[in-house]
Amino acid sequence: MAKEIRIGLVGYGFMGRTHSNGYKRVGDFFPELQSRPVLQAVCGRTEDKTKAFAEQWGYKSYETDWRKLIARDDIDAVDICTPNDQHAEVAIAAAQAGKMVLCEKPLARTTQESLPMVEAVEKAGVPNTVWYNYRRVPAVTLAKQIIESGKLGKIFHYRANFLQDWTINAELPQGGAALWRLDAAAAGSGVTGDLLAHCIDTAIWLNGSITDVSAVTETFVKERMHTLTGKVEKVGIDDACIFHCHFANGSLGLFESTRYARGHKALYTFEINGEHASIRWDLHDLNRLEYFDHSDESIVRGWRSVHITDGDQPYMKHWWVPGLSIGYEHTFVHQVADFLRSLEQGAPCPPTFRDALETARVCDAVLKSAAERSWQNV
Amino acid sequence: MAKEIRIGLVGYGFMGRTHSNGYKRVGDFFPELQSRPVLQAVCGRTEDKTKAFAEQWGYKSYETDWRKLIARDDIDAVDICTPNDQHAEVAIAAAQAGKMVLCEKPLARTTQESLPMVEAVEKAGVPNTVWYNYRRVPAVTLAKQIIESGKLGKIFHYRANFLQDWTINAELPQGGAALWRLDAAAAGSGVTGDLLAHCIDTAIWLNGSITDVSAVTETFVKERMHTLTGKVEKVGIDDACIFHCHFANGSLGLFESTRYARGHKALYTFEINGEHASIRWDLHDLNRLEYFDHSDESIVRGWRSVHITDGDQPYMKHWWVPGLSIGYEHTFVHQVADFLRSLEQGAPCPPTFRDALETARVCDAVLKSAAERSWQNV
Amino acid sequence: MAKEIRIGLVGYGFMGRTHSNGYKRVGDFFPELQSRPVLQAVCGRTEDKTKAFAEQWGYKSYETDWRKLIARDDIDAVDICTPNDQHAEVAIAAAQAGKMVLCEKPLARTTQESLPMVEAVEKAGVPNTVWYNYRRVPAVTLAKQIIESGKLGKIFHYRANFLQDWTINAELPQGGAALWRLDAAAAGSGVTGDLLAHCIDTAIWLNGSITDVSAVTETFVKERMHTLTGKVEKVGIDDACIFHCHFANGSLGLFESTRYARGHKALYTFEINGEHASIRWDLHDLNRLEYFDHSDESIVRGWRSVHITDGDQPYMKHWWVPGLSIGYEHTFVHQVADFLRSLEQGAPCPPTFRDALETARVCDAVLKSAAERSWQNV
Amino acid sequence: MAKEIRIGLVGYGFMGRTHSNGYKRVGDFFPELQSRPVLQAVCGRTEDKTKAFAEQWGYKSYETDWRKLIARDDIDAVDICTPNDQHAEVAIAAAQAGKMVLCEKPLARTTQESLPMVEAVEKAGVPNTVWYNYRRVPAVTLAKQIIESGKLGKIFHYRANFLQDWTINAELPQGGAALWRLDAAAAGSGVTGDLLAHCIDTAIWLNGSITDVSAVTETFVKERMHTLTGKVEKVGIDDACIFHCHFANGSLGLFESTRYARGHKALYTFEINGEHASIRWDLHDLNRLEYFDHSDESIVRGWRSVHITDGDQPYMKHWWVPGLSIGYEHTFVHQVADFLRSLEQGAPCPPTFRDALETARVCDAVLKSAAERSWQNV
Repeated sequence: MAKEIRIGLVGYGFMGRTHSNGYKRVGDFFPELQSRPVLQAVCGRTEDKTKAFAEQWGYKSYETDWRKLIARDDIDAVDICTPNDQHAEVAIAAAQAGKMVLCEKPLARTTQESLPMVEAVEKAGVPNTVWYNYRRVPAVTLAKQIIESGKLGKIFHYRANFLQDWTINAELPQGGAALWRLDAAAAGSGVTGDLLAHCIDTAIWLNGSITDVSAVTETFVKERMHTLTGKVEKVGIDDACIFHCHFANGSLGLFESTRYARGHKALYTFEINGEHASIRWDLHDLNRLEYFDHSDESIVRGWRSVHITDGDQPYMKHWWVPGLSIGYEHTFVHQVADFLRSLEQGAPCPPTFRDALETARVCDAVLKSAAERSWQNV
Repeated sequence: MAKEIRIGLVGYGFMGRTHSNGYKRVGDFFPELQSRPVLQAVCGRTEDKTKAFAEQWGYKSYETDWRKLIARDDIDAVDICTPNDQHAEVAIAAAQAGKMVLCEKPLARTTQESLPMVEAVEKAGVPNTVWYNYRRVPAVTLAKQIIESGKLGKIFHYRANFLQDWTINAELPQGGAALWRLDAAAAGSGVTGDLLAHCIDTAIWLNGSITDVSAVTETFVKERMHTLTGKVEKVGIDDACIFHCHFANGSLGLFESTRYARGHKALYTFEINGEHASIRWDLHDLNRLEYFDHSDESIVRGWRSVHITDGDQPYMKHWWVPGLSIGYEHTFVHQVADFLRSLEQGAPCPPTFRDALETARVCDAVLKSAAERSWQNV
Repeated sequence: MAKEIRIGLVGYGFMGRTHSNGYKRVGDFFPELQSRPVLQAVCGRTEDKTKAFAEQWGYKSYETDWRKLIARDDIDAVDICTPNDQHAEVAIAAAQAGKMVLCEKPLARTTQESLPMVEAVEKAGVPNTVWYNYRRVPAVTLAKQIIESGKLGKIFHYRANFLQDWTINAELPQGGAALWRLDAAAAGSGVTGDLLAHCIDTAIWLNGSITDVSAVTETFVKERMHTLTGKVEKVGIDDACIFHCHFANGSLGLFESTRYARGHKALYTFEINGEHASIRWDLHDLNRLEYFDHSDESIVRGWRSVHITDGDQPYMKHWWVPGLSIGYEHTFVHQVADFLRSLEQGAPCPPTFRDALETARVCDAVLKSAAERSWQNV
Repeated sequence: MAKEIRIGLVGYGFMGRTHSNGYKRVGDFFPELQSRPVLQAVCGRTEDKTKAFAEQWGYKSYETDWRKLIARDDIDAVDICTPNDQHAEVAIAAAQAGKMVLCEKPLARTTQESLPMVEAVEKAGVPNTVWYNYRRVPAVTLAKQIIESGKLGKIFHYRANFLQDWTINAELPQGGAALWRLDAAAAGSGVTGDLLAHCIDTAIWLNGSITDVSAVTETFVKERMHTLTGKVEKVGIDDACIFHCHFANGSLGLFESTRYARGHKALYTFEINGEHASIRWDLHDLNRLEYFDHSDESIVRGWRSVHITDGDQPYMKHWWVPGLSIGYEHTFVHQVADFLRSLEQGAPCPPTFRDALETARVCDAVLKSAAERSWQNV
């Protein structure tokens, strides 16, 4: 009989849906796991919406005060899907209560806010992970395997961008449940913490530490109506951020993110160029990995478009048959599966809070570099 | 309270998984539906495997004799996921027992075998549908909407292919649970009933009736070990099939399918060329629709790569946010949702058994044309 | 000192330009050749236009009667760029006069008309070639090399299409200098002789003989104003043609051509699927060859997009540096270079008239098959 | 009768070939021009190679001392194709001799070296242009037209890169005729002056002035054998360079270039994101322009792949028919045509020396920024 891991979900927005779906599907597709998540309770401030979410997704109960949720004996793991400004308080309390903690990314708004979270989970000795879900796109995991195999040789370049276009309209307000990502108080930063944090997490995973950065940020729309105050207020977030950097392995990095790139919805791409081979990937076509291998015979050498749907490619034996693709949401199923497996093995489930702290440090250095127009060490 | 539709699933192979997933997920993503499927029972011949499937997917019970399943009062709908040779017998019995019937495609091995199925469901007056799931890829449904809007004008050409490469190895046996698709007795035909049937169903839906066909088939590997008999036996299926045809609207059609196209796993593509616009689509990148509109300003006219992930595109408001893709399995969730909605509305859920009969007729004409080396009317 | 090959060009239309450009550029890029073409004379019916063409392109003289051109002692080679209905008469006369003959494709309107041309050049023993220029796209020549290397193994499938959209407008007239391709009397056939002839030539070159065919043709616009008569007349050409066939090597072939595929300007594509590898190519992106090799390591196996601009790829050492592409017109430079080299070597320059006769036979069989709605042997 | 512009070419390397081809072809394809270039003389240091080049390309004469070439009365225009370190001296002397001056890019090694060149041509009042040839790729010129039409609205982002992989091999020497681009003394800089200069020229043309920059450079291979000295010497050039910047119009810029991006031969790409539309382009597929227009109907909105081969697109009426592509070398034909037309019109032919000075200033600021690890104003 599978061991039950009783989940208490805090927040029922977009990420609440993706995580819930992950919990509900993992058993169907990863039957070998010896534990299974149980949707024990969801917590939100607005009772009717919280209750409706619980009913739709099959949570056994709901709470409107996260402190009560944490206090419950029948909760094994607390999953934090709130806006960024609440991550720290909830996570620390949950850890102190001895709960496992799964936290949506970024860890918090700043390194300063993140550090006590790391200390809390480590002091409590509770399993913890951060939902940098893109690591678990099969193509991205395959990129990791290829790099670790040594196929690329010495690395020269890493570049990534995350381009969106959803905030070009200056009439879009900031703040509130739907648009807290535009509100600096809730989000901490704009594209840096929201989008570049993903790029940085992947980059560190694939290419190692970033040592120093030089950045520029821009806020194209300076003022927006604030949903909570009803007034036009200054926009405090970065609409766009670009930085270049050095990695500890000697390679050069280049990162760009914006919400003003007309035509791109969620174009997260990365490319890594090594001495012998290169890899690139694009979230819009997430089942494909582009791979170039200089050791191929020269007359037929070219970028390979690898369709990642075969059973010998990461995670794919759990799904369908060759040629049949999966989508965005599967990354969360994979993270749940890996988290459960890590529990069975008594191993960490990366990225842990401590892993995510490094991303927070890079984000802080990036924002400081942009503010001071100077290079910053990480 | 949602009305329960108690499902009895016959067969627990690949299609048993896709359908089960459809039933389990529909409520989470289509909460507006007033009915919901309940996984009441699964039926298979081998008890231990059937039981294991029931446990993994959460079926309340299991049977090893489909007649018992059909006889149960607590089953509202019978879903047939067996090899093709069993579709007719099960479907007819289910209809006669007053059950709703959902049948995996193709309807049966031949038109002759299919016709009594149509008559049975119509005589019984039971809701029925056939799982030609590719109609419900959002991009394909959008293609239907665009065509119906009149944007294409008069149609000149329709072409489709379905290319695979998984049977090139001559050592692959035929027959048995895993490889019944290579066994003519179980499958009826090879690529014609398996793959071209999909292409034909979509084509008729998008472009209307096919009137006459001229076909060629080939069996590249003439003999294979038979899993059930243990002997090398003649291969009775078509490994490849090509046909051209006329549609009733005056356009020319071209279809090709094979399991010997090295490099293609499940490359189902179609293209339709109209007087004013054209559309094409490809299963390997199923979230994209290519669209060309001659009314665009000439200097910037080109094929548009439309990434189908926005809320105003078919089905997508039920899933994530723009840029975040879905996969193959979602087509089955969509079909379940549409089936449930059709029950609420008292309307048929296309393709019905009768709709699928037309596809069977085209398949029969194709196979006869190939056998007789002559044009055949449908 | 390079030996001069004095060219007499008959016809100064689109093909007259492409050939002239080929003659003028070959020396700059193939300096190792020991002979060089000289633009001795161009011949056309309309004196002022012929003279203007001669001046623009640097022909030393012009004629308005092709018989006079052929009679001139200072002409070594006659290059035929007229509409199809004049190919035979000019070519036969040129051969009888002992001239080398270069003939634009197709050889003539029919096999019957082509056969005496073959006999004439063979009887006269004069060098001859037909401008099926797409063989000499570097990517296509590379495909030939790859196939000959045995990388593909046994061939299962060959498919090609040539899709255009320029005659959709029913107001477009037929006939005359600009639109003789729509006039059956001048062209012989429609897309079959114009476009499919290219596809068939390449196919035979890459995959060997075609043994039998089953075809369908369509004329979507039944009547068009005739430029020469000023009257609305029946359209005698095929607007679209589809056929499937067997190759002598046991593979299945599939060909389609049309001028009614909205969105495609000159989309000539082919794909060949072998046991071990596959190749595909597309004229719109002619510097790329797609190559799939099943012997690649499975987790990183995919279609390679090979950018054919390196010095070790066919013809490319004569041009620029890696990454810098060439275009359509270079195919004609290559054919001139190969023709001159063949003269030096005393070898034929394929496709010869005899080679092109095989394409004519397939075209005839295709048109007969379509007319009689039956398979035809070639 | 066309007026003759007698060309004196200095240098016969790769660029000598591209320019010569431009001069020789322009008359065939731009017959409306009232002047035509004449290949009067080529100048090089090594007599036998210079003579051979003259014979191959049809230059009437040759020189081995560029001062003699400039002194000749029968030379109207001096075209400079030498390594960068000789540009200034030759150009200034040519201008002082009253010759028109066409100079290969970059103008010189530094702004300091470039400024007297600008002053010399302006003082002499001679026509002058710099061969930033990529402006005249039809797709790039079309981008300029689209931007000027106002379709993009306010610009938010401009990004470009130029990625190559040809110097990864550490055994490759530096210096000499073939590899002067790796020798800082001859080239001035590495990828900045060689590749980024192209990107900057296009960017300024399309998006206006760059005001300040923040850059990083890297030299991955620190020492290489020097061809001229025969000794292993320090590599003085930048192997890679990345910078971000502000444009005067308020948009953010991002540029990257390297010769260590395995898999890319000459991947020059740019993308510009405006409020209403975006454009991107890629040298490897130079006949295509990607265009996204937010005003398209939402359900069929997507990036358009525009194949630039139609007569109403820039330069294309001079070439073939829709669908038939041109290549890299045509950009030089276009520049010759535009230069000749500018002479007829008495107008400058951009980019002039003064235009190119702005690119030099940006390059200098980039290199200084990288050296000093600080933002630099241009």
